[in-house]
Amino acid sequence: MAERFDAVDVIQTKRDRGVLSDAQIDWVIDAYTRGVVAEEQMSALLMAVFLNGLTRPELNRWTDAMIASGERLDYSHLSRPTADKHSTGGVGDKITLPLTPLVASFGVAVPQLSGRGLGHTGGTLDKLESIPGWRPSLSNEEMYAQMDEVGAVICAAGAGLAPADRKLYALRDVTATVACIPLIASSIMSKKIAEGTGCLVLDVKCGSGAFMSDLDSARDLATTMVGIGSDHKVRTVALITDMSTPLGLTIGNALEVRESLEVLAGGGPADVVELTLALGREMLDAAAARIDDEGIPGAGVAAGSPEASRRAGQLREADLPKALSNGQAMDTWARLISAQGGNPHADLAWATHTHEVFARENGYVTSMDALKVGVAAWRLGAGRARKEDAVQAGAGIVLHAKPGDAIQKGQKLMTLHTDTPERFERGLEALKGAWTIADTPTTRSPVVLEKISE
Amino acid sequence: MAERFDAVDVIQTKRDRGVLSDAQIDWVIDAYTRGVVAEEQMSALLMAVFLNGLTRPELNRWTDAMIASGERLDYSHLSRPTADKHSTGGVGDKITLPLTPLVASFGVAVPQLSGRGLGHTGGTLDKLESIPGWRPSLSNEEMYAQMDEVGAVICAAGAGLAPADRKLYALRDVTATVACIPLIASSIMSKKIAEGTGCLVLDVKCGSGAFMSDLDSARDLATTMVGIGSDHKVRTVALITDMSTPLGLTIGNALEVRESLEVLAGGGPADVVELTLALGREMLDAAAARIDDEGIPGAGVAAGSPEASRRAGQLREADLPKALSNGQAMDTWARLISAQGGNPHADLAWATHTHEVFARENGYVTSMDALKVGVAAWRLGAGRARKEDAVQAGAGIVLHAKPGDAIQKGQKLMTLHTDTPERFERGLEALKGAWTIADTPTTRSPVVLEKISE
Repeated sequence: MAERFDAVDVIQTKRDRGVLSDAQIDWVIDAYTRGVVAEEQMSALLMAVFLNGLTRPELNRWTDAMIASGERLDYSHLSRPTADKHSTGGVGDKITLPLTPLVASFGVAVPQLSGRGLGHTGGTLDKLESIPGWRPSLSNEEMYAQMDEVGAVICAAGAGLAPADRKLYALRDVTATVACIPLIASSIMSKKIAEGTGCLVLDVKCGSGAFMSDLDSARDLATTMVGIGSDHKVRTVALITDMSTPLGLTIGNALEVRESLEVLAGGGPADVVELTLALGREMLDAAAARIDDEGIPGAGVAAGSPEASRRAGQLREADLPKALSNGQAMDTWARLISAQGGNPHADLAWATHTHEVFARENGYVTSMDALKVGVAAWRLGAGRARKEDAVQAGAGIVLHAKPGDAIQKGQKLMTLHTDTPERFERGLEALKGAWTIADTPTTRSPVVLEKISE
Repeated sequence: MAERFDAVDVIQTKRDRGVLSDAQIDWVIDAYTRGVVAEEQMSALLMAVFLNGLTRPELNRWTDAMIASGERLDYSHLSRPTADKHSTGGVGDKITLPLTPLVASFGVAVPQLSGRGLGHTGGTLDKLESIPGWRPSLSNEEMYAQMDEVGAVICAAGAGLAPADRKLYALRDVTATVACIPLIASSIMSKKIAEGTGCLVLDVKCGSGAFMSDLDSARDLATTMVGIGSDHKVRTVALITDMSTPLGLTIGNALEVRESLEVLAGGGPADVVELTLALGREMLDAAAARIDDEGIPGAGVAAGSPEASRRAGQLREADLPKALSNGQAMDTWARLISAQGGNPHADLAWATHTHEVFARENGYVTSMDALKVGVAAWRLGAGRARKEDAVQAGAGIVLHAKPGDAIQKGQKLMTLHTDTPERFERGLEALKGAWTIADTPTTRSPVVLEKISE
């Protein structure tokens, strides 16, 4: 088959700060997916994009082309509105676990397609796999059925969704073209749009433990993603949230599931609860606004009808804290886990070895570095260095104090967990300088820093 | 074997406008040559270099690493000084053919390793292959012997010379990273330095038919290459020469050999003679200066000795025009061609078909576009589109008038030659707008525009 374009011309256009045409973008993504544009040509183009950027129309088209490389799921037949959440990844970020059943318990279906952890940030699938029997892979038919019956899935994205992104991501990883806002944004948004959600709330992490360490770049990424979502008719908002400190008191797979269960039981650390409620509020509000605009076609509810208004109003008035305290969210959790083969009442693994770290002075904890704690937990076995590595269900870190807390000399600061005690040394090494203790207390920084919407 | 660096870190350094360390450069070129750094990683690095540049020390080290990827020839045992010429490539550029024997006839040995044509610029090896029996490939032993006996070689660069460059060049070709001054300069200079010449005169072409179309970029490339040569102890100068008009009156392989023979017989077009003499003068002067500095170790002539001074003086006083008119250069040509199996007295091929183009008005030729004429000759069969294509020995174009010449309506302007007459149509198409004829004469532009030395 004759190709419509020459890869060299496409690369050269972006190299020379030109604007790629829609047809060039469609072709280059498709031809790369087909293997006609070679890896070395795409990596040169990616570096040119990294250094010279993409305009908003280029980025939208790039995202379109990635979506078009695979299948696109469709929940328009569903009798409920849909809303999803995506986090750019942090340390101790288990929010998906309490949030998904919480939102689903109000009748908003959550098609949560998740990933695995790589490096110091954890992955939702790894966490849930510490629940005996739970399986991450669902066929499309199983997903559709579970979305109907339970109102939520948390599962691995299938290979059919944005295959161009999968190929591009692997290439970016080895060519130093990961940390590029248009490429990050199109990667995330192509999958989320292909996944078929009607609303999307983005949790853009900012701080040492996040991909974006400063507020400006987090804001830039959030704005870019919200723009792509809106241009693709997905109601999208973003919260920029703090990731200078780990979220909650646990980092590690089974440890984080336990903490999530505390939240679903109405307890849990204040920051985890606060963020779960904030993101849940945004998801329900977005779903309500979507009902205002479009009704619920799958339920025969027309936009502007009294029933649409009633349903939207219910979501706006939903009492999220109550759903955590009265067991409503926990019930949905149990059904969600059971539906995917997991036993929600099974005992979770504990690591076979622990090591405690004590404070060496009296004072106040003024910082607890998310990156250092994340790296330490990773080294203890909670994370993986390569895709094919296994993770330890029980490994990780439990914090006993966080910034703002007073601490006494000799008091426990954190406990390290691992099945492989020879890892303690490298874990402790990663923790060097991870916290500061001072004479005067610090004010706790807010969890939600900013909200970005169109 | 554990690798000293990670390719991603090296790419990232250049991506972020950092300066690569010597060790990083050594490693990345070596690891790429070994296949440890993947093609897609090197192409990302090349694009980062394209957009962010290399400092002079980085570029020197990059060139060093390319040289170190293969063997380095050594003529220090030779009883004569060595000087070579490299042209960045143009249309009708047959200068190597008369120049090499001319310089060699004065006792300065010329290790001319040449290439083949690609696209609209011709290649010296293609031209010489139109001489029956002549062979382009010599073993290193044959080269050393011929440099001793004849005082010159014109042959294909062996695979052992800067293999990193060969691999890089093929990669640059498909990733839009060719037109980058540091990469062009290191590619040319690594081969010329590895080739072992003591002196190097660069002919940097400037104009429509050249890689560098404007004087600023030609100057930048010339300065960069002269810098690399000097930093590597090769006495290097560059002439920037005009390539807005084809050199001489012939474009095509056998056609250009015939014109070169005219020059070696004391005739030939003025511009070809002028450039041959100018480059020859620079080569002899550079060789003389090198004798001043280093003597001729292989001949037992010490720097500063009366013999060194006598030899250098002879080169400085050499009468180049006389060597063309009295047959001295032609004698060396005959020995040079014979040594490589060629018959210097054999008849050269003529194309089987010709097509004449006539002037449609009276006036003066004011321009003759090198690129258009070069593309036309290429399409007629003088050049190749892909490396594996064959060229026609007889194909090409003979010009009957050049800028500055008066012309009458109906007078022959040029003759197209090919063995495949179906090519005339596309050849003539390429010639559209290739020349202008005006009422008032233009002044001929000088051949040599500038000289660049350290």
